[in-house]
Amino acid sequence: MARGRFITLEGGEGVGKSTQLAALAEALRARGLTVVTTREPGGSEGAEAIRRLLLEGGEERWSAPAEALLFAAARTDHVDKIVRPAILGGQWVLSDRFVDSSLAYQGGAGGLGIEAVRAVNAFGIEGWFPDRTLLLLHPEGAERARARDGAASDRIGGRPASYHQAVEESFRAIAAAEPERVRLIDASGTPEEVTARLLAALGDLL
Amino acid sequence: MARGRFITLEGGEGVGKSTQLAALAEALRARGLTVVTTREPGGSEGAEAIRRLLLEGGEERWSAPAEALLFAAARTDHVDKIVRPAILGGQWVLSDRFVDSSLAYQGGAGGLGIEAVRAVNAFGIEGWFPDRTLLLLHPEGAERARARDGAASDRIGGRPASYHQAVEESFRAIAAAEPERVRLIDASGTPEEVTARLLAALGDLL
Ligand SMILES: Nc1ncnc2c1ncn2[C@@H]1O[C@H](COP(=O)(O)OP(=O)(O)O)[C@@H](O)[C@H]1O
Ligand SMILES: Nc1ncnc2c1ncn2[C@@H]1O[C@H](COP(=O)(O)OP(=O)(O)O)[C@@H](O)[C@H]1O
Ligand SMILES: [Mg+2]
Ligand SMILES: [Mg+2]
Repeated sequence: MARGRFITLEGGEGVGKSTQLAALAEALRARGLTVVTTREPGGSEGAEAIRRLLLEGGEERWSAPAEALLFAAARTDHVDKIVRPAILGGQWVLSDRFVDSSLAYQGGAGGLGIEAVRAVNAFGIEGWFPDRTLLLLHPEGAERARARDGAASDRIGGRPASYHQAVEESFRAIAAAEPERVRLIDASGTPEEVTARLLAALGDLL
Repeated sequence: MARGRFITLEGGEGVGKSTQLAALAEALRARGLTVVTTREPGGSEGAEAIRRLLLEGGEERWSAPAEALLFAAARTDHVDKIVRPAILGGQWVLSDRFVDSSLAYQGGAGGLGIEAVRAVNAFGIEGWFPDRTLLLLHPEGAERARARDGAASDRIGGRPASYHQAVEESFRAIAAAEPERVRLIDASGTPEEVTARLLAALGDLL
């Protein structure tokens, strides 16, 4: 049996990742592929248990490095239990966020360092980096997330523009360092236009 | 205020770590030092919560790398909440096991690699490696642990001698690589004789 492919969608809040994940899965299924969709944080039972631990207590509950190690452990379980078995079974796996979110949020914007966070994650997931990462870019992502989440968006809405800027710059730095794996996708226009761009960026894998 | 010191006791099961930790704390207090004793796994509230997560489910619950990341996260919390504040407050911290147990058990005997496990731990605990590590060596440690634990010792007693051998060899390799930090201690003889050797191995720090 041919090995499946591992595709991740990344980008800041509100750029359209979840909308496009569903549309992309649909489009790939229409081409006869078997597709599994998943998401981070979470994605497996062990990863969800770690996530609950991370959410317990206040802001000071875990230091930034402890939190990054817990995210890496959760991601390792996600790969062990969901991603790897599906891909080895011939399925395509689409994940809404994955390792690059840790690199951009905790490594870049959070100050732990992109390479240090990459090394810790590589210890856990070993070679299971995505075959292709689609980095969605939209200038009004933060505004769209606020409109979507309403009163529940304080956590995101309360963060300064400089934070969203640091996240996006980190994502762009990761893409620049790995141009074969990570593709920049203009996420403006209609959902159908964006899906067409995503499919084009997977052309060589199809 | 003068910074305190961070001392760890390491070695296989039954070599006398817990017995000596108490005796060493007593001896240091008799010299006027303020001493905090702690232990791993565990040692802080967050570390205990991670430990409960590790103990949930069966043998297949977590892969070896996921487990190593969870141990590193627990150790980071132990340092953040207990070890570092005490040392910065001028106290001496004595810990029954610490990072070298992960290096020897998971890195060496478990096959993940001593250097890889060290790197993941260094990400979390940063510079907070012990000032001195006392590695207790006793040829009949495994037998003593069995005698101590009785029927509850199946988990340890059931492991082959080759496993205990691999753990001890890994501890010795770590000591050989860091002779200034890690001191080999002959743990045979009476408890008082062993405590005297431990104090001698701390002579330059006192
Ligand atoms: N192409 C698009 N045009 C207009 N609005 C969109 C488009 N794609 C997504 N949205 C809307 O923008 C908001 C954020 O999209 P979402 O997929 O939830 O982003 P993310 O998962 O990246 O946070 C949602 O309200 C969604 O309906
Ligand atoms: N110097 C010693 N001589 C004889 N027995 C000892 C000595 N030190 C410890 N023991 C006994 O050996 C067993 C293992 O000691 P313990 O301190 O629990 O080891 P560890 O914490 O390294 O597993 C215990 O039953 C303890 O009472
Ligand atoms: Mg989303
Ligand atoms: Mg003990």
